[in-house]
Amino acid sequence: MSAEQPVRRVAVALFDGFTVLDVYGPVQAFASCRVMHPDGTPQRLYQIFTVADRPGPVAAGEGVSTVADHAFADAPRFDILVIPGGFGTRRAVSDQGFLKQLAAASEQATVTTTVCTGSALLARTGLLDGRPATSNKLAWDWVVQQGPRVRWQRRARWVDDGNVLTSSGVSAGIDMALSLVERLNGRDLALASAKAMEYVWNADAATDPFA
Amino acid sequence: MSAEQPVRRVAVALFDGFTVLDVYGPVQAFASCRVMHPDGTPQRLYQIFTVADRPGPVAAGEGVSTVADHAFADAPRFDILVIPGGFGTRRAVSDQGFLKQLAAASEQATVTTTVCTGSALLARTGLLDGRPATSNKLAWDWVVQQGPRVRWQRRARWVDDGNVLTSSGVSAGIDMALSLVERLNGRDLALASAKAMEYVWNADAATDPFA
Repeated sequence: MSAEQPVRRVAVALFDGFTVLDVYGPVQAFASCRVMHPDGTPQRLYQIFTVADRPGPVAAGEGVSTVADHAFADAPRFDILVIPGGFGTRRAVSDQGFLKQLAAASEQATVTTTVCTGSALLARTGLLDGRPATSNKLAWDWVVQQGPRVRWQRRARWVDDGNVLTSSGVSAGIDMALSLVERLNGRDLALASAKAMEYVWNADAATDPFA
Repeated sequence: MSAEQPVRRVAVALFDGFTVLDVYGPVQAFASCRVMHPDGTPQRLYQIFTVADRPGPVAAGEGVSTVADHAFADAPRFDILVIPGGFGTRRAVSDQGFLKQLAAASEQATVTTTVCTGSALLARTGLLDGRPATSNKLAWDWVVQQGPRVRWQRRARWVDDGNVLTSSGVSAGIDMALSLVERLNGRDLALASAKAMEYVWNADAATDPFA
């Protein structure tokens, strides 16, 4: 693992009632990617920040608040967008202002990822039309209604469609994020990230214990 | 699953440089425990809040901030304490004021849980002396130095010592939290929480893939 790898920026979209593990599973997977700098200090390969309608605290569905670092309009550029799900998606799918900002964020990102019912939000922007995608299994019937032109795949831990990756419920976001690390940084680094998290990586997108 | 089960309060201790998944793994496991209220609305069995030196944002090691709801001194009563680990423990183990507040919080809780290098913090309070405990495997040599009188167990996904549970690194906190749910609410509810998270629960404390 060389220190020559680029540092990528990850923006995590927040909204009231997001699910915490949808956010922090991928955040931990990206943040656990470190290489040794030539001066002997560990260097992270992903820099992470949060975006929302406005900067400041955003209440998760689980009762704990995460700080949004930036408003969508003022966010620095980023490479990867993470869209979590949660009970708050029920309201957010009808928030046209939020969906517009989410679509713009997705269009500026090199890769857009969704976790759990986050794919319902991306579906409502229209950006998933005609593309394969998956979502949470307990909320499945509601999710598919949010995107009638999406090629929904029920049996999938995650679906990799190139510049859009959608994962199943909650923990599946960790597996998906590690697969993106594998693509961008190689399998050794993905395995090292999983080991640093003491996480048993389900590295096969087709293995879905919850479908 | 009856709606007659009590609602328990979970306090999560935060400090600069905590590891996000150490916090949000257990938070998600507890928050995903829901029973149906007689009026048909889901009722959470765990209420979660955060405590720190002072209320307000606390920066995690991964670059995202979580809001501390209360100062230790002003926190409501709680049943379960969660102590995360992270690179910030390197500094926190020498912060006598923080350790004193952590010890007081642990002594008021019915059950204290630690994730990853959080056990190094609890060890430094003296409350783990003579008791079995585990921790992160990559930081093992440093952790055991923080508690020479602790009966450290290297091979363990988590160690259940009654009113103190200590887990291995990061993701292991999810497995430990689900085991506590099993003890307090029964196995069916623990399995339902894991299913809601689409998480493959390692339900055996002795199975440690990372030792």
